[in-house]
Amino acid sequence: MILVNENYSLLQSSYLFAEIARRIREYESTNPPRKIIRMGIGDVTEPLPSACIEAMHRAVDEMASRDTFRGYGPEQGYAFLREAIAENDFRARGADIAPDEIFVSDGAKCDTANIQELFARDIRIAIPDPVYPVYVDTNVMAGRAGPATDGRYAGLVYLDSTAANGFVPAPPAEPVDLVYLCFPNNPTGATATREQLAAWVAYARANKALILFDAAYEAFIRDDATPHSIYEIPGARECAIEFRSFSKTAGFTGTRCAFTVVPKECRAFTAAGEAVPLHPLWMRRHTTKFNGVSYPVQRAAEAIYTPEGKAQVKSLIDFYLGNAAIVRDAMSRLGYEATGGANSPYIWVRTGMDSWKFFDKALRECQVVVTPGAGFGRSGEGYVRISAFNSRANVEEAMARLSATR
Amino acid sequence: MILVNENYSLLQSSYLFAEIARRIREYESTNPPRKIIRMGIGDVTEPLPSACIEAMHRAVDEMASRDTFRGYGPEQGYAFLREAIAENDFRARGADIAPDEIFVSDGAKCDTANIQELFARDIRIAIPDPVYPVYVDTNVMAGRAGPATDGRYAGLVYLDSTAANGFVPAPPAEPVDLVYLCFPNNPTGATATREQLAAWVAYARANKALILFDAAYEAFIRDDATPHSIYEIPGARECAIEFRSFSKTAGFTGTRCAFTVVPKECRAFTAAGEAVPLHPLWMRRHTTKFNGVSYPVQRAAEAIYTPEGKAQVKSLIDFYLGNAAIVRDAMSRLGYEATGGANSPYIWVRTGMDSWKFFDKALRECQVVVTPGAGFGRSGEGYVRISAFNSRANVEEAMARLSATR
Repeated sequence: MILVNENYSLLQSSYLFAEIARRIREYESTNPPRKIIRMGIGDVTEPLPSACIEAMHRAVDEMASRDTFRGYGPEQGYAFLREAIAENDFRARGADIAPDEIFVSDGAKCDTANIQELFARDIRIAIPDPVYPVYVDTNVMAGRAGPATDGRYAGLVYLDSTAANGFVPAPPAEPVDLVYLCFPNNPTGATATREQLAAWVAYARANKALILFDAAYEAFIRDDATPHSIYEIPGARECAIEFRSFSKTAGFTGTRCAFTVVPKECRAFTAAGEAVPLHPLWMRRHTTKFNGVSYPVQRAAEAIYTPEGKAQVKSLIDFYLGNAAIVRDAMSRLGYEATGGANSPYIWVRTGMDSWKFFDKALRECQVVVTPGAGFGRSGEGYVRISAFNSRANVEEAMARLSATR
Repeated sequence: MILVNENYSLLQSSYLFAEIARRIREYESTNPPRKIIRMGIGDVTEPLPSACIEAMHRAVDEMASRDTFRGYGPEQGYAFLREAIAENDFRARGADIAPDEIFVSDGAKCDTANIQELFARDIRIAIPDPVYPVYVDTNVMAGRAGPATDGRYAGLVYLDSTAANGFVPAPPAEPVDLVYLCFPNNPTGATATREQLAAWVAYARANKALILFDAAYEAFIRDDATPHSIYEIPGARECAIEFRSFSKTAGFTGTRCAFTVVPKECRAFTAAGEAVPLHPLWMRRHTTKFNGVSYPVQRAAEAIYTPEGKAQVKSLIDFYLGNAAIVRDAMSRLGYEATGGANSPYIWVRTGMDSWKFFDKALRECQVVVTPGAGFGRSGEGYVRISAFNSRANVEEAMARLSATR
């Protein structure tokens, strides 16, 4: 008899964004008075940079001719892309990362979901709250979280990210084995200082723990003092894996390209206490379960690192950061506490009510979609996330409409 | 202390194709007398059909303009592609599969690797031998295979595919829970008849087992009597998941698109014996750990189903099948037993010696790369797989060179 993985029955409700989509569909079926503006899901709205478009066209043409056609590529990505990443994203910032420590993939969602496969089942995991739901759900599926009570899993250690700690939790007093961190943060928009990250690296080294550092929003950092990579912190190479994405950097949410960095020194341990390097394990996992990113997509990603590509990406991010400033200022003027949005596309807004209630109010009274903070965890209750990914006109219209919530 | 998944230490040697690549590199460094012809790895060589190229260019242009730009798509694939698949690959052949039972992905390798996550750890798995290594390795990583002795894992049931059964194993006498089948087969090139598949479906229903049916080479079937899909067999909808790929169908090995079919009736069971539908579980897995296939790639795949696309794909497969016939005939004339190659791009050749020895001999004496059968399992010992994916000139030259092995 084929037995199912019963851990799936421990998953709570449906995936956040599916529930949001369902409520929108239901409301739309009642013929709302005007077009709904979606400030909820973190999906980009602006076209791909022209450098990427041109590179992709050229690569598609290569696929049309026998002499230049590309079949299977290296599972970990073509050298042309990994070298551009190592040079521009790491070495140029003083972080010592080699091209063969970079694994190109089709998404940071996939990578942050898959990485837990490298670890034993009985590890102790710390998860920030609020948090991107994928970190939790993938560990529930793997049987590491145990049963849930009041929205929290018995087997996880929660790191509350609240106004009291500026939405940057400090390392816990108790030892944990695996820690998920995300800066600039989704959903709160908070960034971590060098000192805060250094405290986490020191904690990981002292406890033989591992940090999974999700830097998908790195491109939004404009403050010179804020680290872009965990590898700007000495000692991080042995205790941190970093995830990056082109989704928000260059509008690749529908084009699909990302990468994960596993330094050669990065280690876990056997039950007998012997250190095991994670680089060959991730290589084995990546080459066994993945077959590389589409060649034209890798060429499009490479184009981000050309002079034209860099200028276009900067201008794209500038545009979204401009939106973010408008949102933050507008919500503040309405009397809401609003944080984030300075080095991040997300603004975290304290609503003064249940967050799904505010979601429904904004949808029904303003025809504006926001993301309920409670969907990201218990500490998100009372907040909503507003995304800066939209046209300027939509952002301005949405902010005008939301004044009706006051 | 972060504990590693120690199951990885049970994996045997490196991935087959990595070992082949290593031996080729080593030989190449000795300056071989002429260019090496690669008849080993199953990678296509001909350009993408022009219908796909044109569709991809149009989609890239859509990504260049705000009005037509696409961000995140549905994780399970756009309706335009799932509808074309359901209609052309299934309904047109009398197999009742709906678009919402199709999950578009970036590769059948990924899907056949990931599917085991839906099942409990303590299930009994039957694996053909020889076999595509991914089925075994992913279950080793998940802790289901136990230790290996003499190349076989204690926890797996092996189904020998030998000349005696025409390389199509019958269901075993003992009950198993999960069965991997692949027809047309990689590596043997064998196909299964309707009666053989019906016996497997009857076995699965009688034993409450599940069949994972890998049909990545379906497009090579030209014999009218051979089923293209397991769903042509009555009763399969409740006990089979099918995997398809555009990699070999339309040259997408470097472009990346595939799909998995999970019928609504398809079930597994709780330990208490309650039936659980697998469709919502795979949906949850797919939406949690995957973010959809690149939009231009999905448009390229859709173009396969246009009248021009169908004609171009047929001509592409005709070309490779022409190569396959040349290989099979040439090896037969040299006195080797050679099977497959009729409804398959692979020819399975009995070498009369250790298969890695034949690999080395063909490489060093003929500068031709073949795939050692032993790399696919114990029953592959003594055989090599020759692939039809090459130019006509290379195929003819390789066959002329291999006469030196006699």
